[in-house]
Amino acid sequence: MRTVFRDITILSPEIGSDSGWQVIERGYVVVEGSEISAVASGDLPAEIDAERVIDGRGKVLLPGFVNLHSHAPMTLLRGLGEDLPLERWLTEKIFPAEERLSADDYYWGSLLAIAEMLLSGTTCFFDMYMGVDQIAQAVLESGIRANLARGFLGDLESAKERLAEAVSLYNRYHGAGEGRLSFLLAPHGTYTCTPDLLRHTAELAGELGVGIHIHLSEAQTENQTVLARYGKTPTQILAETGLLEQPLLAAHGVHLSDQDIELLAEAGAVVAHCPASNMKLASGVARLDALRQAGVRVGIGTDGAASNNKLDMYEELRLAGYLQKVSTGNPESVPAGYLLQRAINPVPEGFGLLAPVGCIEPGYQADLQVVDFGKAHLQPVHDYVSNLVYAAKGSDVELVMVAGKVLVDGGELTTIDQEKLFAEVNKRSAKFRV
Amino acid sequence: MRTVFRDITILSPEIGSDSGWQVIERGYVVVEGSEISAVASGDLPAEIDAERVIDGRGKVLLPGFVNLHSHAPMTLLRGLGEDLPLERWLTEKIFPAEERLSADDYYWGSLLAIAEMLLSGTTCFFDMYMGVDQIAQAVLESGIRANLARGFLGDLESAKERLAEAVSLYNRYHGAGEGRLSFLLAPHGTYTCTPDLLRHTAELAGELGVGIHIHLSEAQTENQTVLARYGKTPTQILAETGLLEQPLLAAHGVHLSDQDIELLAEAGAVVAHCPASNMKLASGVARLDALRQAGVRVGIGTDGAASNNKLDMYEELRLAGYLQKVSTGNPESVPAGYLLQRAINPVPEGFGLLAPVGCIEPGYQADLQVVDFGKAHLQPVHDYVSNLVYAAKGSDVELVMVAGKVLVDGGELTTIDQEKLFAEVNKRSAKFRV
Repeated sequence: MRTVFRDITILSPEIGSDSGWQVIERGYVVVEGSEISAVASGDLPAEIDAERVIDGRGKVLLPGFVNLHSHAPMTLLRGLGEDLPLERWLTEKIFPAEERLSADDYYWGSLLAIAEMLLSGTTCFFDMYMGVDQIAQAVLESGIRANLARGFLGDLESAKERLAEAVSLYNRYHGAGEGRLSFLLAPHGTYTCTPDLLRHTAELAGELGVGIHIHLSEAQTENQTVLARYGKTPTQILAETGLLEQPLLAAHGVHLSDQDIELLAEAGAVVAHCPASNMKLASGVARLDALRQAGVRVGIGTDGAASNNKLDMYEELRLAGYLQKVSTGNPESVPAGYLLQRAINPVPEGFGLLAPVGCIEPGYQADLQVVDFGKAHLQPVHDYVSNLVYAAKGSDVELVMVAGKVLVDGGELTTIDQEKLFAEVNKRSAKFRV
Repeated sequence: MRTVFRDITILSPEIGSDSGWQVIERGYVVVEGSEISAVASGDLPAEIDAERVIDGRGKVLLPGFVNLHSHAPMTLLRGLGEDLPLERWLTEKIFPAEERLSADDYYWGSLLAIAEMLLSGTTCFFDMYMGVDQIAQAVLESGIRANLARGFLGDLESAKERLAEAVSLYNRYHGAGEGRLSFLLAPHGTYTCTPDLLRHTAELAGELGVGIHIHLSEAQTENQTVLARYGKTPTQILAETGLLEQPLLAAHGVHLSDQDIELLAEAGAVVAHCPASNMKLASGVARLDALRQAGVRVGIGTDGAASNNKLDMYEELRLAGYLQKVSTGNPESVPAGYLLQRAINPVPEGFGLLAPVGCIEPGYQADLQVVDFGKAHLQPVHDYVSNLVYAAKGSDVELVMVAGKVLVDGGELTTIDQEKLFAEVNKRSAKFRV
């Protein structure tokens, strides 16, 4: 199958820069199977034919977003408990609701999350939750790319079963969907897992050749707990237990000291910044600019829909910018091009994914989004990157392709039956309101 | 002309509460001319007929948004200068561009702003800028409701001409468009106007029977300037010059002391909170929760598109919530219902507008929006207010009515030729990129 985008504006991250963008005002892109095979400016040569030719006038083609931290099935709990302190929110609303999640709920909740993500330009997500068999099913059926992880906590004994489940998931699904599906190991956090369990996880990750997805210093109380228990910061615990020697994705990273940041930088760890969740739950302000200055690779995540309450990377990436500028008092920090790269290109090549994404160059996966600039809020165009970062909405995304397959066409899902999805979701949602 | 909404979910602010909402799960609303004439739950009675009956299944009807602080023509400068400090942004980008704005540019820039606002559920805006004749033209032609003001600054002598223009605008347009258009006087700020000019403005406002729209304590440097010059805060200057005795709309209100807040509360002044602009320009964090506790009425504004860069009240109202929660460390502050009321019901009755808006009750103007909940990001519905505040997008708005007239229908503008608008805007935009 060959697909061609013609007469389209092409935006691709500048290789070797954390914020630069290459813009081709009018060009074409050829997709062959799951990969990009050609990119050039100017007219589409007459000799190139294709099963489908997409006319891109007035439109912008850029790589799809990678949502770097999510809990997909939590869409079913969207808006269940608002404006509550974390402790009450968890114990009164979320935990009781999670107790009621059935296997089918995991599936439908994940499919709803995938629908929402695809419709707003996200082509890949890194997830950590329960019900991973069902999440995997929804990923494989929908055609999206994902890295999944079965969360676990406690000590070596209490986590035994879930660890076995994680290994079984890896064995059964790693590389499934022609390589779209991959896995990390997900110890919940340094305050919820014993050092023994973390050490064992590091060894297991080394054996399997996968990395780690963990919550890190999300709330001040988490840091206080770890400090009181071990006399160390959560990041120091990561170092001590060998987790920093594995490819590591740390979600949140809100309360990090200079030394913590240095440790993460040396280890080449990636931080998933989740500004909406951090703000809504009043967790604090991650030091995005300091992470950038220290050379830590940062990506952007929505967290679960229960604490956001949406999965739109456009809003999330500009929120990251707004928050950092006002909290540092420096409007020059985290410029637009940097924010857009973080949402598209969060991880180094080979980290957690089985094929290269995030760039419009031959050999990269065709994980792409087409944005319709024919909207009042995207006019005029003084700067494509600026309009995408500070004005575009997820709903401006008209077409989404993952691994060469069109999953959103004319703003409609091609692999998910939306009517059935909404009916299932609504049927299942009442039981959580107790 | 009679229009009926049937089988629709109706949300209206609770009278006498700053955060409560009345929800009718399934009901009908009758609009007679420019006003709402009936609201009830249940089936539409057979004896009610109408020129148009709108079926609202799966949809939510609520009052339109009031954007409380904007500079409409600045849409033409959207994305012109990003990630710069205020001083450089103004002197290198904005002021030189504003020098090039022609009368026609004001008109087309305003029409673009109005298009964007209508399409995202805003039915009224409070504006302060130049080219107000052209802004008024765009308001009258498009059918939106607006309160406009011709900004002025300097001293009595240098502001003379612009003050005369303000009075002339008032005489010619106040009450135009069957009362949709009204005026305030707009001295730019306490750091840019002399006390004499402010005193004169207060007197003039009293004579005309209109209120004031002014920038107040947007940046720390503004406070420092006023303090160095007069030994007083900007709010104290408002009190001293008689401006607090007039109905007063203060934009931004970022750097306010407890005593400032008390003065504003006693005066019954209204504060327009502009979180995106304040964050993007790193101006600071307004004390929304403190204003609320003190009983100051707050509304939400987008500011101009050059410093936002969009005019979507959905994003703006949740941003206000996110920012306040993280900056106070209190997730319970400014709850969802409060945020939605601020965006819909920012001013007391009679303040700046010539007819009552912001409520779905007989006798109120039919300034309404219909939101299509058939979207992945709005499912499931545990709580209508929560989904609107934390998940809805401007693009979910399907129909918008102002004074009983449908201005957005099926997501399309009915009074603005969008194709012509975009062509004009693009033709005009190149000259600003110098």
